Amino acid sequence: MDSPPDVFIGLKDRFEGVTVDGREEKVDKSKFEEKLRKSLEWWTSNKNRAIWFRVYKEQADWVPILAASGFDFHHARTGMVVMYRWLPTHESSNLPNYAHTLLGVGGLVINDKDEVLVVSDRYAMIPNSWKLPGGYVEPRENLIDAAIREVEEETGIRTTFRSVVCLRHAHGGIFGCSDIYMVIALKPINLDFTRCEREIARLQWMPIAEYLQHPQVHETNRQFVHTFLDYQKRGLVLTCRNQVHQVLKREYNLYFVDGDTQAVDDGLKL
Amino acid sequence: MDSPPDVFIGLKDRFEGVTVDGREEKVDKSKFEEKLRKSLEWWTSNKNRAIWFRVYKEQADWVPILAASGFDFHHARTGMVVMYRWLPTHESSNLPNYAHTLLGVGGLVINDKDEVLVVSDRYAMIPNSWKLPGGYVEPRENLIDAAIREVEEETGIRTTFRSVVCLRHAHGGIFGCSDIYMVIALKPINLDFTRCEREIARLQWMPIAEYLQHPQVHETNRQFVHTFLDYQKRGLVLTCRNQVHQVLKREYNLYFVDGDTQAVDDGLKL
Repeated sequence: MDSPPDVFIGLKDRFEGVTVDGREEKVDKSKFEEKLRKSLEWWTSNKNRAIWFRVYKEQADWVPILAASGFDFHHARTGMVVMYRWLPTHESSNLPNYAHTLLGVGGLVINDKDEVLVVSDRYAMIPNSWKLPGGYVEPRENLIDAAIREVEEETGIRTTFRSVVCLRHAHGGIFGCSDIYMVIALKPINLDFTRCEREIARLQWMPIAEYLQHPQVHETNRQFVHTFLDYQKRGLVLTCRNQVHQVLKREYNLYFVDGDTQAVDDGLKL
Repeated sequence: MDSPPDVFIGLKDRFEGVTVDGREEKVDKSKFEEKLRKSLEWWTSNKNRAIWFRVYKEQADWVPILAASGFDFHHARTGMVVMYRWLPTHESSNLPNYAHTLLGVGGLVINDKDEVLVVSDRYAMIPNSWKLPGGYVEPRENLIDAAIREVEEETGIRTTFRSVVCLRHAHGGIFGCSDIYMVIALKPINLDFTRCEREIARLQWMPIAEYLQHPQVHETNRQFVHTFLDYQKRGLVLTCRNQVHQVLKREYNLYFVDGDTQAVDDGLKL
């Protein structure tokens, strides 16, 4: 059934939901309230379920009107907020939450002299502590690319992938999010570092033996090195394979322990 | 230096930022604009950097005023939107993005008869395909707990942890987010399933040999089983250890290949 002429058209989804994009269907504030009222009547009679509004910054005056019409916030990013209302009264909503996990990476860079690349952040949570270079993964960025990029940005050291080491998952981080931090072992291409003055207070190549007992290296960071040394000894590589989904034709990366034990790179001398 | 009496107090952070929480400092719409103007003057003269406003649903009329005063959206969740403005003019903003990665889990449940628990979703992306039971991780939930919960909700099968199998990372999912999907091998406690009618169209115990060549099982899902069988053969366990950070006293889970090869549970008979 076609919608009447004076209601929002929106985009239908496979869950009987409708998404209205504020840039696709622009309306002045003076006419927004009336059009919204008529649209809600139509969607209710049409048995639509979730109604979503993408509201752009320049339409911020839609927000109080939507809130007064039973809409709530769902998620937002620079330039846009998404509000939603669940219409069915006989069925509870099971709409998925938005993302609530920040993604970070640390690069475990060890050179041929068995030294590990360590940094001390300018705005560190624990002042003066030594940690691995790293940072947040950018939207649509792959984890290994992020580790290589962060190491180069912070230290000027270019690297190649060796193995994933481990994954740390914790709750109660910034913005009330949880976070996942993946430690990735990398092999350096160059050895002379250039410090990023904006973010990094100090950096150095620290002998592994010193790192493993340094009072300013915290237990969790020591464990990352112990774990990687254990993988080296056992010939294990936690690898990454880029593939394309057979049906959805969507690219993805798969991280798993490589079945080919010959894939191990040259071991450390320790 | 103390703030003047007619400006927002907010909470200072270690980056010279200020966060104003709408429920801590309530102001009528009529007085909000003037107080915001005075606060921005104060924060600018005080060399504050990022200014954050947590605006609750009942204060939605603050949103157009903030937008008109140079604030943009940062993130939102049910009940609340967060807007920000970067004040320094001589320094570009490097504020972190909000979370942009959805977190899901799949449970690879194999019984003593070498059968794998498979489901067909009611609202499947690929209709009639067989996949592993699973779903989104809830806020503050651990990955293994999420896999055990989803398997039980969808199938009624209670399980215990065996090993992480792999991690899949892809971009361009719902809400424009990327997603991480962790496959976790689980051991069933009971064998009689109870289907969740709301989410699951069909479910069954499928012999592994049939699963590995079934036309409605897609390549990626077959690989999860191949990978786990390989770990079993090699005695590998990708384990999870719950720890507490030495200094921050924050709990976290560490996922890594267990160094103790004796930790492997009874192997499959295949």
